[in-house]
Amino acid sequence: MTSPLRLGIAGLGTVGMGVVKILRSQTDLLATRTGRQITISAVSARDKTRDRGISLAGYAWETDPVALAVRDDVDVFVELMGGSEGPARTATEAALAAGKDVVTANKALLALHGQELAEKAEATGRSIRFEAAVAGGIPVIKSLMEGLAGNNITRVMGVMNGTCNYILTRMEHSGLPYEDVFKEADALGYLEADPTLDVGGIDAGHKLAILSAIAFGTRPDFDGIEIEGIDRVSIDDIRAAADMGFRIKLLGVAQKTGRGLVQRMQPCLVPAASPIGQLEGGTNMVVLEGDAVEQIVLRGPGAGQGPTASAVMGDICDIARGLRLPVFGQPAATLEAAQPAISALPAPFYLRMSLLDKPGALAKVTAILGNSEISIDRMRQYGHADGSAPVLIVTHKTTRTALNEALKALAATDVVSTQPVALRIEHV
Amino acid sequence: MTSPLRLGIAGLGTVGMGVVKILRSQTDLLATRTGRQITISAVSARDKTRDRGISLAGYAWETDPVALAVRDDVDVFVELMGGSEGPARTATEAALAAGKDVVTANKALLALHGQELAEKAEATGRSIRFEAAVAGGIPVIKSLMEGLAGNNITRVMGVMNGTCNYILTRMEHSGLPYEDVFKEADALGYLEADPTLDVGGIDAGHKLAILSAIAFGTRPDFDGIEIEGIDRVSIDDIRAAADMGFRIKLLGVAQKTGRGLVQRMQPCLVPAASPIGQLEGGTNMVVLEGDAVEQIVLRGPGAGQGPTASAVMGDICDIARGLRLPVFGQPAATLEAAQPAISALPAPFYLRMSLLDKPGALAKVTAILGNSEISIDRMRQYGHADGSAPVLIVTHKTTRTALNEALKALAATDVVSTQPVALRIEHV
Repeated sequence: MTSPLRLGIAGLGTVGMGVVKILRSQTDLLATRTGRQITISAVSARDKTRDRGISLAGYAWETDPVALAVRDDVDVFVELMGGSEGPARTATEAALAAGKDVVTANKALLALHGQELAEKAEATGRSIRFEAAVAGGIPVIKSLMEGLAGNNITRVMGVMNGTCNYILTRMEHSGLPYEDVFKEADALGYLEADPTLDVGGIDAGHKLAILSAIAFGTRPDFDGIEIEGIDRVSIDDIRAAADMGFRIKLLGVAQKTGRGLVQRMQPCLVPAASPIGQLEGGTNMVVLEGDAVEQIVLRGPGAGQGPTASAVMGDICDIARGLRLPVFGQPAATLEAAQPAISALPAPFYLRMSLLDKPGALAKVTAILGNSEISIDRMRQYGHADGSAPVLIVTHKTTRTALNEALKALAATDVVSTQPVALRIEHV
Repeated sequence: MTSPLRLGIAGLGTVGMGVVKILRSQTDLLATRTGRQITISAVSARDKTRDRGISLAGYAWETDPVALAVRDDVDVFVELMGGSEGPARTATEAALAAGKDVVTANKALLALHGQELAEKAEATGRSIRFEAAVAGGIPVIKSLMEGLAGNNITRVMGVMNGTCNYILTRMEHSGLPYEDVFKEADALGYLEADPTLDVGGIDAGHKLAILSAIAFGTRPDFDGIEIEGIDRVSIDDIRAAADMGFRIKLLGVAQKTGRGLVQRMQPCLVPAASPIGQLEGGTNMVVLEGDAVEQIVLRGPGAGQGPTASAVMGDICDIARGLRLPVFGQPAATLEAAQPAISALPAPFYLRMSLLDKPGALAKVTAILGNSEISIDRMRQYGHADGSAPVLIVTHKTTRTALNEALKALAATDVVSTQPVALRIEHV
């Protein structure tokens, strides 16, 4: 048996303690599977005195995560503090400089500084593994980077923020407006300290940037993602979408096209009967498409102590077993700068607007759409209430440019009472 | 860049030619991802003259796959001939003895001779990879063996034979009986040369034996699997199950219990709204459950040139990248003999029987079930036709032993006109 693999764990919150629990309860199983003992040399966290339910007395305590990262008795620095800057970044850089492998669950760090960190890791022949950074317990990084390595990846999609999916499905089932369900989620502790990370689509955007880099061999390009959060999704739209056979999801899509790399994270309509449409609550789903494999769909818990710790342990076991790859699956030097798409691919759109009760109102709307060469697939007009009538339209494929033109023209008429809502429809 | 990885490919059918196509079309991508060239030194197949649509003139031709397997210019023997005995087995053994790595899509070979082959491979430090052997393009072996390595796996389930799932879903949608749909599937070329491999549940059983070994650290034990095919599933049962909110699937389940290892591959009822219940046509689905990760669901194409070649290429890329593991994820010597469960876990069952139109008939049935301590969850009796009435019963959890006792007693009455059908209900 090879020498033990010695860990230094920085961050002893939910995930960190989940990792400690697995290392203690599965000691023999892990040794059998990896061919060596996996031990903890030292730990670090902000508060040493907090009762975490498990005694950490057997491990050296470091107040400074940087000091932990460079200890002689640490082979792998396990970074579970989070945050793209500050201690997480400094300690990760220190660990790499000291020739340690790094395992992290930190999506922001990888999405924003992935290229630089990959170059540092590869310069010293070390690896950074980050399965837990995307879609919790689902082994999606491994599936994409290793399992589908023979594919020219064509598209990656996913619902990757459980909190947003919880809010959207809860709105639909309860009929409550966004604000109320947001407060519920907050009370349940589902939201990040800065909730815009979740509901603003930023957390999910970080995850998409990581998947995109692996899928298409491009440098992580978080800034190139078109991001829109769920905070403007109304209960009216959720109801109307359901009425037309759709559900609204915060969906990430990354796709390489002739016009450049499309990366967007935004609320979309998906068919209610599709796998993504059926996704409830905090569950995550990732769809991977390649020229050979066609389509793979992976579903599982996107957060939580056990699932996230499972992903961290998968990475630790890989390193214990000697499996080492370039950080994004190919040498950092070969990753190309992402060329953001100059215009998105045409898609069908869902439009909701309120028409004033005037003769010829609907004729004006259809004429404007026709002028922008937008053809209508389905339309529903509902009963008039207080002088205005909700109208739902599903268009055939059109460009965002044509749509914006039409929306502008609609706003200039005297028949549309409020700003029309336009959401992309994704057939998944 | 490291020296090229040189392949010898035996078997140039659909999958073999799929692998050749990927190696030719993705040459640069594969080199970027793996850090080396992947080349073909030699190929072998039964018929050299057959037109395969691609010229193989650049590769040495070996008539004998054993000669191919041991060539000096071959690093990896890619076995795509199939069959648990004969050339596939002999050539694989020869390759391992000659110190080659092996990549194979051969489920029968691994399920029946996996232990012996794993010992041979590990003795010379070589690996056997077989992602394509289970669930086609889905990276399920990698997810289970590597991604979930930190878990104590509790249950593995799957619909892993696309042909059976095609037949069952086609019966439901068309209303045609088994025999007719079987003939259709045969005409479409969906069946193996020996169709009992598919419809008898044997092919799916081979796959389950492989997953089970990895999940539970036991030697592959195909003989320990309780196997039942789909040939006795009637259109009446498919209709009746649908009526009660279920669909019938050929479902494999492997589970470690206090009473031993449960391994069964048999037609079961699953809730129509569950992910497995919604699976249509030839698609495969595997469910992996572990103490930390909770539940992961993987879905994708279970067969076909592209998806299967994708899985083979994933393995080849792993070897090119230097990723090497014990064949079943832990050293062959540490795999324990599987202890088949002495009795299955209690489960709810679906019963269908035809009652003769006699006073007190239903009372006799319910009394017999009560005597065997089987309690009824739901029951439906349909209109009498030609003197007999179909009765559907969904029981609460009961043991197979109690059920068999009741079925025997039912057969001995004078009110049941045909042998009752009993199928397990799996809540997935």
